[in-house]
Amino acid sequence: MEERNLIMVPGPTNVPDRVMRAMMKPMIDHRGSEFRTIYRDVAENLRYLFQTEGDVFILTVSGTGGVECAISNVVNPGDKVIVPVFGLFSERVKEKIIRRGGEAIEISLDWGTAPKAEQIKQTVEKEDGVKAIAVLYNETSTGVTVRDLPEIGKIAKDNDALFIVDAVSILGGDQLPVDKWDVDICVTGSQKCLACPPGLALISVSEKAWETVEKTSRPFYLDLVQMRKFSERHETPFTPAIPLVFALDEALKMIREERLEKRFERHKICGEAFYDAVEALNLMQLPKKEDRSHTVIALKKPPDVNNADVRRIMKERYKVVIAGGAGKLRDEIFRIGSMGIISEAEVIRTVSALEAGLIENGFQLRAGAGIEAARRRFSSGR
Amino acid sequence: MEERNLIMVPGPTNVPDRVMRAMMKPMIDHRGSEFRTIYRDVAENLRYLFQTEGDVFILTVSGTGGVECAISNVVNPGDKVIVPVFGLFSERVKEKIIRRGGEAIEISLDWGTAPKAEQIKQTVEKEDGVKAIAVLYNETSTGVTVRDLPEIGKIAKDNDALFIVDAVSILGGDQLPVDKWDVDICVTGSQKCLACPPGLALISVSEKAWETVEKTSRPFYLDLVQMRKFSERHETPFTPAIPLVFALDEALKMIREERLEKRFERHKICGEAFYDAVEALNLMQLPKKEDRSHTVIALKKPPDVNNADVRRIMKERYKVVIAGGAGKLRDEIFRIGSMGIISEAEVIRTVSALEAGLIENGFQLRAGAGIEAARRRFSSGR
Repeated sequence: MEERNLIMVPGPTNVPDRVMRAMMKPMIDHRGSEFRTIYRDVAENLRYLFQTEGDVFILTVSGTGGVECAISNVVNPGDKVIVPVFGLFSERVKEKIIRRGGEAIEISLDWGTAPKAEQIKQTVEKEDGVKAIAVLYNETSTGVTVRDLPEIGKIAKDNDALFIVDAVSILGGDQLPVDKWDVDICVTGSQKCLACPPGLALISVSEKAWETVEKTSRPFYLDLVQMRKFSERHETPFTPAIPLVFALDEALKMIREERLEKRFERHKICGEAFYDAVEALNLMQLPKKEDRSHTVIALKKPPDVNNADVRRIMKERYKVVIAGGAGKLRDEIFRIGSMGIISEAEVIRTVSALEAGLIENGFQLRAGAGIEAARRRFSSGR
Repeated sequence: MEERNLIMVPGPTNVPDRVMRAMMKPMIDHRGSEFRTIYRDVAENLRYLFQTEGDVFILTVSGTGGVECAISNVVNPGDKVIVPVFGLFSERVKEKIIRRGGEAIEISLDWGTAPKAEQIKQTVEKEDGVKAIAVLYNETSTGVTVRDLPEIGKIAKDNDALFIVDAVSILGGDQLPVDKWDVDICVTGSQKCLACPPGLALISVSEKAWETVEKTSRPFYLDLVQMRKFSERHETPFTPAIPLVFALDEALKMIREERLEKRFERHKICGEAFYDAVEALNLMQLPKKEDRSHTVIALKKPPDVNNADVRRIMKERYKVVIAGGAGKLRDEIFRIGSMGIISEAEVIRTVSALEAGLIENGFQLRAGAGIEAARRRFSSGR
């Protein structure tokens, strides 16, 4: 059998065989008892994953659909929502607010930087009647994590605004205690740090958020109130993507077996190993050190190197798939997804393929320097 | 190995092993060449399935989400849409129009009956500036098919209204030549007559519809204009449910191998065999003969029989799962999904289990009468 490609794009990520096999369970009726049993297990494990005692729901949509669910259950025409924009996916959050007729109060930042609590505070104090603060926790297009997230949660709470967090490319791979950090609505996707196939979004809703949601003119398919009603009998309002729910059930069991703290630590050391390799190869990281993500690694493409050609070599000769940039950084950066079943083996294989791709493109580097730096990180981490 | 349950609910339906196995292909990047190849194949086969030369798209949502996509890309606040309501799912179509702020011009009918072209014609002529006529082709809650669909298409065309068809529980199981019948937007789900797992909706859009869609204030995740833009490079705007796209690809190949006409014929004879059995057992069908569906069989529960208990016996002792009613008919009827990989074997097994469930509930019937009637239909059909 041919060796599989190693998928190191920022989602979808590699899926463990155990999770893949779960999809093969025979079809069931989503209104029957078998489904209700799985629903109960999944909901319980989602509460563990989100670290919340609030409500959690499974949506049959991509991560983007999940974020639209959050926005459209809270924002009515004319409502003010503060939204920092610092890359393609935070721009999308803003766009969703606007499509709902909301007033997006944008904090515009350079791509590669992270919004800070102080900026949010100033904006919230300048504006009257802010209904929500919507923050993308991990900007997939630039490899930036918003490390001030807990402080921003406090600001939202103190100003009686809802705190909406898009955590699509980070939940399950880095700290995000939803209740402790005052997050009212949190969204993630199945195909990132959960190491599940794409097609589901997961969402949590706080007690505080329900008051607002109930008063919002909501869409039909993504109506949270309907979801809450059906969840009482452990069902979804509409037919869910059953094989993906089987897969999610298994993926969540694996997360519980590993325990969250260990999983976060594993993602952190793998991310740091990538950054060590990047430095050892004299490559430039896109974000500043304090803003860089443990789950999406963004590095600048050296000037005389062809972005697509480096990736073509990595894929064709080494079966390692990484991504170029997105949006206006399309050609400027490489992005590596370091999520899900990531470990030393995947990091080393990726760095090794990257070195080869760069060398073939005429970039001057000491062969093996990246691998060595990454390996050292894992050895010292023991 | 334990024998699998035979899933005879009106969706999800049984999935062939060949389609299940397709989900196990290793994960791929949805922005890579492998995905684009599959996208091209799927789009071509969807055009065959819908019998259209218009555009077709794959959505990661349930059928309900697909219908909301159709409505919300066409209806702006205040727009008039004619919608016949004759069961739970046509009620949902109306609800979606209202949630968009549209003016739903309802033609209200008894559950179990079908709207007729003449009723639509009268309504359209009474109202000024009707923007669209939205018809549910097959009412899953009552087993009714709208046989006047082609005439209604002509009425929409003659009155310059868009014709939106919810074909979730019928496309691929009965006649629906989208272009020939003047359907502007047609929606189906993966988990019904296509014999694919749930989680995807499929939608077609006519040239005429695009003019309206472009002028509509559209949602973000379900924006058809974005889908058209990304389809030019054979991609979806957002991460699709990749294993389900693999499954759909395989399911569509099976449909092409069988050919549509043969598939429709197979569904028709299986539906008729069910109705023959129902008559032979002295059970009552919910719809009139001319309105009855080939894909969802609705029969009235005899007065002295316990609905849930009949179904419990069928499932526990015979591993056959059928549905009760939905909405206000919850306890009143049984519903059998006769979709996808249905053949004489599944019909006989279902009728046999139903006979047993009824006998155990004290209902007087000549054992084997239903089976015999169904068998005869298949023999005479040869």
